[in-house]
Amino acid sequence: MRQYMSVDFTDVRIEGEFWRERLDTVLARTIPSQHEKLVRHGILDSLDVPQPPPPLRIPRNERHNFTTQIFWDSDVGKWIEAASYALQHRRDAGIEAKIDAIVEQLARAQLSDGYLNCWYIGREIENRWTNLRDNHELYCAGHMLEGAVAYFKATGRSRLLDIMLRYVDHIASVFGRGEGQKRGYCGHQEIELALIKLYHVTRDRKHLDLAAYFIDERGSLPHYFDMEASARGDDPKKFWAKTYEYNQSHKPVRAQDKVVGHAVRAMYMYAAMADLAAELGDAELKRTCEQLWRDVTSKRMYVTGGLGPSATNEGFTQDYDLPNDTAYAETCASVALIFWAKRMLNLDLDGAYADIMEQALYNGALSGLSRDGTRYFYQNPLESDGSHSRWDWHPCPCCTMNVSRLVASIGGYFYSVGADVLAVHLYGGSTASLTIEGTPVVLRQVTDYPWTGSIRIEVEPAAPLSFALKLRIPGWARSATIAVNGKRVDANTPARGYVEIRREWRQGDKVELDIAMPVERVYASPKVKMDVGRVALMRGPLVYCLEQIDNSDAPTELLRLPRDAEVDDPVRDDALGGFVRIAAKGAKADTAGGQALYGNRPPDLMPTQLTALPYYLWSNRGPGSMTVWIPEV
Amino acid sequence: MRQYMSVDFTDVRIEGEFWRERLDTVLARTIPSQHEKLVRHGILDSLDVPQPPPPLRIPRNERHNFTTQIFWDSDVGKWIEAASYALQHRRDAGIEAKIDAIVEQLARAQLSDGYLNCWYIGREIENRWTNLRDNHELYCAGHMLEGAVAYFKATGRSRLLDIMLRYVDHIASVFGRGEGQKRGYCGHQEIELALIKLYHVTRDRKHLDLAAYFIDERGSLPHYFDMEASARGDDPKKFWAKTYEYNQSHKPVRAQDKVVGHAVRAMYMYAAMADLAAELGDAELKRTCEQLWRDVTSKRMYVTGGLGPSATNEGFTQDYDLPNDTAYAETCASVALIFWAKRMLNLDLDGAYADIMEQALYNGALSGLSRDGTRYFYQNPLESDGSHSRWDWHPCPCCTMNVSRLVASIGGYFYSVGADVLAVHLYGGSTASLTIEGTPVVLRQVTDYPWTGSIRIEVEPAAPLSFALKLRIPGWARSATIAVNGKRVDANTPARGYVEIRREWRQGDKVELDIAMPVERVYASPKVKMDVGRVALMRGPLVYCLEQIDNSDAPTELLRLPRDAEVDDPVRDDALGGFVRIAAKGAKADTAGGQALYGNRPPDLMPTQLTALPYYLWSNRGPGSMTVWIPEV
Repeated sequence: MRQYMSVDFTDVRIEGEFWRERLDTVLARTIPSQHEKLVRHGILDSLDVPQPPPPLRIPRNERHNFTTQIFWDSDVGKWIEAASYALQHRRDAGIEAKIDAIVEQLARAQLSDGYLNCWYIGREIENRWTNLRDNHELYCAGHMLEGAVAYFKATGRSRLLDIMLRYVDHIASVFGRGEGQKRGYCGHQEIELALIKLYHVTRDRKHLDLAAYFIDERGSLPHYFDMEASARGDDPKKFWAKTYEYNQSHKPVRAQDKVVGHAVRAMYMYAAMADLAAELGDAELKRTCEQLWRDVTSKRMYVTGGLGPSATNEGFTQDYDLPNDTAYAETCASVALIFWAKRMLNLDLDGAYADIMEQALYNGALSGLSRDGTRYFYQNPLESDGSHSRWDWHPCPCCTMNVSRLVASIGGYFYSVGADVLAVHLYGGSTASLTIEGTPVVLRQVTDYPWTGSIRIEVEPAAPLSFALKLRIPGWARSATIAVNGKRVDANTPARGYVEIRREWRQGDKVELDIAMPVERVYASPKVKMDVGRVALMRGPLVYCLEQIDNSDAPTELLRLPRDAEVDDPVRDDALGGFVRIAAKGAKADTAGGQALYGNRPPDLMPTQLTALPYYLWSNRGPGSMTVWIPEV
Repeated sequence: MRQYMSVDFTDVRIEGEFWRERLDTVLARTIPSQHEKLVRHGILDSLDVPQPPPPLRIPRNERHNFTTQIFWDSDVGKWIEAASYALQHRRDAGIEAKIDAIVEQLARAQLSDGYLNCWYIGREIENRWTNLRDNHELYCAGHMLEGAVAYFKATGRSRLLDIMLRYVDHIASVFGRGEGQKRGYCGHQEIELALIKLYHVTRDRKHLDLAAYFIDERGSLPHYFDMEASARGDDPKKFWAKTYEYNQSHKPVRAQDKVVGHAVRAMYMYAAMADLAAELGDAELKRTCEQLWRDVTSKRMYVTGGLGPSATNEGFTQDYDLPNDTAYAETCASVALIFWAKRMLNLDLDGAYADIMEQALYNGALSGLSRDGTRYFYQNPLESDGSHSRWDWHPCPCCTMNVSRLVASIGGYFYSVGADVLAVHLYGGSTASLTIEGTPVVLRQVTDYPWTGSIRIEVEPAAPLSFALKLRIPGWARSATIAVNGKRVDANTPARGYVEIRREWRQGDKVELDIAMPVERVYASPKVKMDVGRVALMRGPLVYCLEQIDNSDAPTELLRLPRDAEVDDPVRDDALGGFVRIAAKGAKADTAGGQALYGNRPPDLMPTQLTALPYYLWSNRGPGSMTVWIPEV
């Protein structure tokens, strides 16, 4: 059922200014500084087991109030994955030595039966596999597995992969539908997609089967988390998150049609489901994914591609409930939406998936990393009174390595290849080395995208080759032109988001794509009551915002954009690594007129110049207020 | 320092349609039905002590998670108070027998040392006075005391008052600054204002002193709630509400300048402070009250007079944080704001106090009681998707009796008298029998207020008498006319909200006051971000709202009011006990155009007729959505 395969990021050399800068920052600063923080916060030390019980040992009756230590194996695994992607760009003996040291720790920690969760081994091994609902054992295994696969692919060294293969064998012996096995699955989905990555390396069907088991068993009755809680002596009804919607086990996965609960859990699960649908040719699972996709993108997504309005469940609430100031919109959730979107694209080449992938990438995901590559957002609200700012590290550092592993592998989201098709999803200066029907093809993009919509594509097959080049015309684009070797091609009637150019391609062929990229006013559905009467500015894939520092230091909540205000031509700005600035004649509500809370006149408006910058760049110049959705007057 | 005395409600006969209907409903239906509910929910039975420990006995380590049973004495006290007010309107042997039966229960329950809290006596008497922070003992005492004072005034029977006097003596022996006394005060203020009511009956200075002690001791260091928690073996830092701002003991009362924490606690305390300032001539306390008043009314009050946006602390959060759909705005808080406002008016005759009193009365307080007088709101949001509706009873039924005791004594909020001054705060058909400088004066209002602004006032002194009649010109009024015996008097330059007519008044004098009462558009400060771009409709003191049932069954969140839309002349409607309806040519956002969550055009608007009714009347015709703040387009 999989129609397309992604082109691996190792085959795409990033050259354009935008992604080159982000990638260099992640490789040079983010990944090394993340290792430093794993050391400083004791996360790497925690792999040395057994060790004396730590001060944070959790009393039996509060075990759901897990400490973040319980996730630490996953953070190490995610760093190994990100660092391994860095090695694919450039081998580095220092990083490899650091990873090998971790591998030694893991080798020492692993039990003879293959079990490998350092938190349980070091603290209460007798309780392993007794609280899948809360305690993230399989989640940790999944991230370590992703790290092991990535390190093996980067270096060819298999020691970590072998360790994890033994652990996976242990897991497969414990969980399943056989006699004496536990019919469990993880409270935080993640191992499912990791097992499919493993399968892509081993091609051993048992790894795919285990992933499918975890997906299909989820939510069946009697409910595993009920049984497990009773076995612990806990009351299953006293689940701290109150509903199994929290971890998407409220009903069998194939019966789910609403995106609910914890956003990252949901996205990781849907990504695995899309993978499984492709691997197994499972049309029902594909339809389930399509329904869930429609649900989240038509009712439950911020314009930034942020997901999950609520801090309470780190996830979803009601349709159209998208508050801006209290938006949780965890960085991880937008990153995981990108994972899912890419997998949907391979199931079905529909530009709607690529549109959302791009929207989440340039906004809700990229906002998670600071300019200097060492500071982070966990939550990505669309409005702030200035109290929200980036942090150096987080008690739960999941987002940090999610953004570094995404950026370090960004080239992997640019292309898909099918039988005689090459589809371009993302634009950006780069050179890709592909194979289409056995023939090597080099595809070069020369462009300043996303700052301009002009893209020159050079196609260089090793020998003349007939195939369809499918160029994505973004959903945000109102018009585009395409010329092949100087001859115009119709660009304004794309089929499901892509213009297809089918011909025999030869060395030296050039395609010029020009996507008009004016500043656009964007409005939310009137059902999103937080955005009623408000407008957002976008240019290309980028959502813009007003920051206090650029707007005469006015609290941005007082700024207004007249419906008929002219927006000036966008201007390049060399600050913040270079970006395109938007200015408009706006207004500011007058608050100097005294203290009245209510009055008979609308607030006086004073003319002011509005200056907007891309949302992903906000909060890099000290604290201050910020607004994406500007009241339109 | 007290410049004015309220005219007691017993001296004001309510005759006008508006309050006559509400009063009759409360007397005939609300108060009897509340007694039935006290019986049905076991609240009256709970006064029969000792009794076997109930199933809800609270484990030591969860004692802050109090059950509502711990408040039950207060609910009984509040019902006695409301029922006693009813007796002032018309004696009723049935009601008196019910109250006397309760008094017998209390007499049997009272311990020999005077202590009288049925929850503690029946359950864990050994723990009395060990958790003032959470367990409401003095709060319960305060409400029972208010009930006892009211019943004594209504019937002259002193048995309950005597019981409570013994209890107050016990309390005065336990609490204070003397040797061996506890330097405590209640976590929920209430007894302070009750003691001042008692003082007005007994004129025994010790009752005033005890009230003053509770106010002045509050928030001093070492903190009583810390000491008390440690004495219980609890960690004082583990206060479930996290901050002593919750109960306004975070600093000494006189040092407080921000309205914080639980809204009802705050309002009860400020009411007592205003009383004490008046009784003691305490200028500092008066200034504190004035500062707190400015704070709440200029930054932290809904347009309905609702207080407290947050359910978490049932109270205040940040300045200008006034979300509409999640507004807590407990009925009790608006009722208590009225208590406080009336006391401020007696300290200083400023129409600003009467304006807020009227605003809270006709909107946030009155909304708490259904048309039929037997259903209630605890929370009073300004917007609902239809999920908020009235309930028959509540696990914490505090609001029910707060609204009944307010309405049953409504005449007491109409007037104040000073040395040679009679001030009219509220308008409504009624006949008051006053005494000014020893001379009886009958003052009759003939009016349909609040449905019209035409008020005829007949002044009938027993003998010709010189005094100043001060007529309030509401803050919402843009123009008014006054004629005395047909001769115009300047009504448009009131001094601090009142037009003063000083003359020798004689039998047959008539004052005609005409306050223009057009529909007004009201806007919030631009700092209230939830109301940006929105308008509320008011007419006179009444805030209006849109209910789904009146607006083509459209979800009210989709309705819009054009800035230039004409508002039709208000129309009398006989439904819902009679009210004035407002209609306007509005618009409705089109949601039929598909599923797009974000797009490049503002939503299409379709013309529609908007119909608004007074906010206090909403949710009397089944579930449906409701909006006060309408997006203005």
